[in-house]
Amino acid sequence: MTAYQELLAHQRETEALAQISGRLGWDQETMMPRGAASQRSEEMAALEGVLHARRTDVRIGDWLSALEGAELGKVETANLRHIRRDFTRTSKVPAKLAAELARVTSLSQGVWAEARKAEDFDAFAGTLEKVLGLKREEADAISDGGSRYDALLQDYEPGATGAELAAMFSALRPRLVALRECVIGASHHPVPLIGEFEERLQMKLTRVLARAFGYDFSRGRLDKAVHPFSSGSGSDARITTRTSLTDPFNCFYSTIHEVGHACYELGIDDAYALTPLGQGVSMGVHESQSRIYENQIGRSRAFTGWLFEQMRQSFGDFGIPDSDAFYSTVNRVGQGSIRTEADELQYNLHVLLRFDLEQSLVSGDLAVADLPDAWNQRFKADFGFAVDKPSNGCLQDVHWSVGLFGYFPTYTLGNVYAGCLNKAMRDAVPNVDTALSQGDTSAATGWLQENLQRHGGLYEPKDVIEQACGFAPSEAPLLDYLENKFSEIYRL
Amino acid sequence: MTAYQELLAHQRETEALAQISGRLGWDQETMMPRGAASQRSEEMAALEGVLHARRTDVRIGDWLSALEGAELGKVETANLRHIRRDFTRTSKVPAKLAAELARVTSLSQGVWAEARKAEDFDAFAGTLEKVLGLKREEADAISDGGSRYDALLQDYEPGATGAELAAMFSALRPRLVALRECVIGASHHPVPLIGEFEERLQMKLTRVLARAFGYDFSRGRLDKAVHPFSSGSGSDARITTRTSLTDPFNCFYSTIHEVGHACYELGIDDAYALTPLGQGVSMGVHESQSRIYENQIGRSRAFTGWLFEQMRQSFGDFGIPDSDAFYSTVNRVGQGSIRTEADELQYNLHVLLRFDLEQSLVSGDLAVADLPDAWNQRFKADFGFAVDKPSNGCLQDVHWSVGLFGYFPTYTLGNVYAGCLNKAMRDAVPNVDTALSQGDTSAATGWLQENLQRHGGLYEPKDVIEQACGFAPSEAPLLDYLENKFSEIYRL
Repeated sequence: MTAYQELLAHQRETEALAQISGRLGWDQETMMPRGAASQRSEEMAALEGVLHARRTDVRIGDWLSALEGAELGKVETANLRHIRRDFTRTSKVPAKLAAELARVTSLSQGVWAEARKAEDFDAFAGTLEKVLGLKREEADAISDGGSRYDALLQDYEPGATGAELAAMFSALRPRLVALRECVIGASHHPVPLIGEFEERLQMKLTRVLARAFGYDFSRGRLDKAVHPFSSGSGSDARITTRTSLTDPFNCFYSTIHEVGHACYELGIDDAYALTPLGQGVSMGVHESQSRIYENQIGRSRAFTGWLFEQMRQSFGDFGIPDSDAFYSTVNRVGQGSIRTEADELQYNLHVLLRFDLEQSLVSGDLAVADLPDAWNQRFKADFGFAVDKPSNGCLQDVHWSVGLFGYFPTYTLGNVYAGCLNKAMRDAVPNVDTALSQGDTSAATGWLQENLQRHGGLYEPKDVIEQACGFAPSEAPLLDYLENKFSEIYRL
Repeated sequence: MTAYQELLAHQRETEALAQISGRLGWDQETMMPRGAASQRSEEMAALEGVLHARRTDVRIGDWLSALEGAELGKVETANLRHIRRDFTRTSKVPAKLAAELARVTSLSQGVWAEARKAEDFDAFAGTLEKVLGLKREEADAISDGGSRYDALLQDYEPGATGAELAAMFSALRPRLVALRECVIGASHHPVPLIGEFEERLQMKLTRVLARAFGYDFSRGRLDKAVHPFSSGSGSDARITTRTSLTDPFNCFYSTIHEVGHACYELGIDDAYALTPLGQGVSMGVHESQSRIYENQIGRSRAFTGWLFEQMRQSFGDFGIPDSDAFYSTVNRVGQGSIRTEADELQYNLHVLLRFDLEQSLVSGDLAVADLPDAWNQRFKADFGFAVDKPSNGCLQDVHWSVGLFGYFPTYTLGNVYAGCLNKAMRDAVPNVDTALSQGDTSAATGWLQENLQRHGGLYEPKDVIEQACGFAPSEAPLLDYLENKFSEIYRL
């Protein structure tokens, strides 16, 4: 075997073991008996040990050296790009620091959950300080003297920089704040959904929705979980959803969101399975798929027209008179402090707040002790009302407690990309609304699969978006889309 | 760390990874989308590779050498016994032979399935010849010049020998054949169960049955599978069952059988979890638990009295007038050629046939080409009627196709052990039937947990049975039990 073949064979087994790890994670959230938690954590630790040993195997360095300057094809070059990036990053972090990070973050989530329950930021501050300190050390180890924040960002969005995102987001924020103010102050407001919706029927209809978005049940499955997620690549990409008796939209749009993630994985060229190219290329691009499925397609006037009829068939008359009113109700903007419950319009304001604060935390400009005040001030400025308690403020998200600094901006980047892709898709597929109004998403999702999903990790994140769209990604299409949509619904 | 601690730490991680492998097997039979099969086989191969490397790690040999002659406690000595036995066995088989066995048996099951479907033994003969040849080679490698068959037997029943089993089984066979003849020729026969039994209600009742036998749903779960099985150790032992519209006994007794296996695993002392002692000690002892749960307890007059009432509550009047008639119906003896569908009386005759034939196959006394004739002659002699087609004869079981020579006798050994344990348990727990007639198995299963299950791998298989019973195990209690039970039911 050549060095390339040996390297890829090694990588292939590692990817297969990583899939197993993912499947265990899925099992844990959906199937595992509750009494098995402690044994499971030991099983997971053993598997993580195997994965870590494989990822830091010195032979990877030897193979990569042997391949320096080799003339390789496009796919081979892309595979090496991923492998080299991961190996370099892993090699730069001292084993002692990696172990300490694993130890601290395995405990810190519990501390955060307790503090949130007790509405006591101080009980979490010391832990956050420790996690942040270790992440700074890690960033210094991998940054080669460059920006700490950029170094952390690479784990989620390779190629992106904090400065570039900040430029994009600073164009986003004022127009979103302004739009939000207009919407909240509008004289006309859509009626909310009221009533009870049998959960068994929600699950039945949500399977119909998953199929309508092209989810292939022969290569996945749909179960319930407390927090919906998708899991797995290649030919086994599973999704979860949840039900609430009074809020069927939670079930339906969680499903469509996760279908977007899973269809990206399932849509990747089969030839890339169990190689570095066989997975979604970044968190931002992943989120672009879940968001365009959920929002630009799933919450469109055309598609909600079809959904309205489906809900009528499932639940009978549920108090919304027609599909126009239903469209407004689906897209209703409320007052809320929780990111995960936010609507399409306000969601990015939640993210931008976190993005700005976490950059300051990582750089040291913002002390952990000052986080609650900084959060609350910014929240009031952007949302117009005050945070009432820490669990509705800076204790609401798990991310920072487990060291996920640099993760938040990928949510908004995903929305920005979804805005770009939506514009390009609608230009390329002229009568898409006619199909959507009949529950047929195949033209829309087919365009995404053909132009973006199938490439997996072949291109860099920004490049694959630009290539699909035919223009350089920017915040403009998302802003135009949101302003048009909500101006119409709220008769601004 | 001492050599012992290092060895156990290594072992513990291996056991944790082996649990993961088991969980994936469970997923494959219950949850996995069908399109994921090929990716899954690659995932499993990667994990098997990791497990194989860990089990043949040269450091195990070093640790074992360092511990030669060390003075250790009872638990430590037992752990070393298991580790040494496994390591010695693995080390003796040349890597090339192990790889060839894995390659051939991964394909041979498919050949067998095709041949069975086509009712064509000749299409399977060549493959069986190849598997048998490799298993002979393997046996020669591990037997140290001793018996080939005994060498293979060790994988399933450590410490047992073919000669010892043959002596026990030759005492069993004539009395079973005679009893079978009397029963089939009896003038009185129980009525069969007739009707349809809603499968949803079967699943509901079968969960009640699992709980009645002490199955702990917080450390396991019950799902459907094509072929019922149990899977997992420690604090995650899952079971499966199946339903048939016209045969609820299939569902109920499959469940109780698998509950017996799972309760053995869950009943082992927690301190042994993820060590060599943390699993059932042999296939025979395992089967003793599933069988005593299923038969001596589950098909007893006392317990079926309670089950009759449960079925009446679930299904209304189903044509059996009272609990006496129901007891007879549950224990009805039919004419059949399939081992897995056999009743308590005839089951062991199926096994003894296979045991005798596989010994001859392994020794070379019986040529593969002569297997169908040998099978059919023996079947006629023991069951009184002829095999009509290969799928009802020597092509019915998967075992030999995948190299499981030496496995079959553990089924009957399990029944023999169940007979012994039943005698001892009934002597020790005098009013057990009173509790069973109210669906309370706790005295019976509690005795088993206390006297047998909790020890896991601490003692050798035969020793743990003898210790629990207070007498050396023999076939006599099983024979007495079967003769009494069926003489009464069939009014012989």
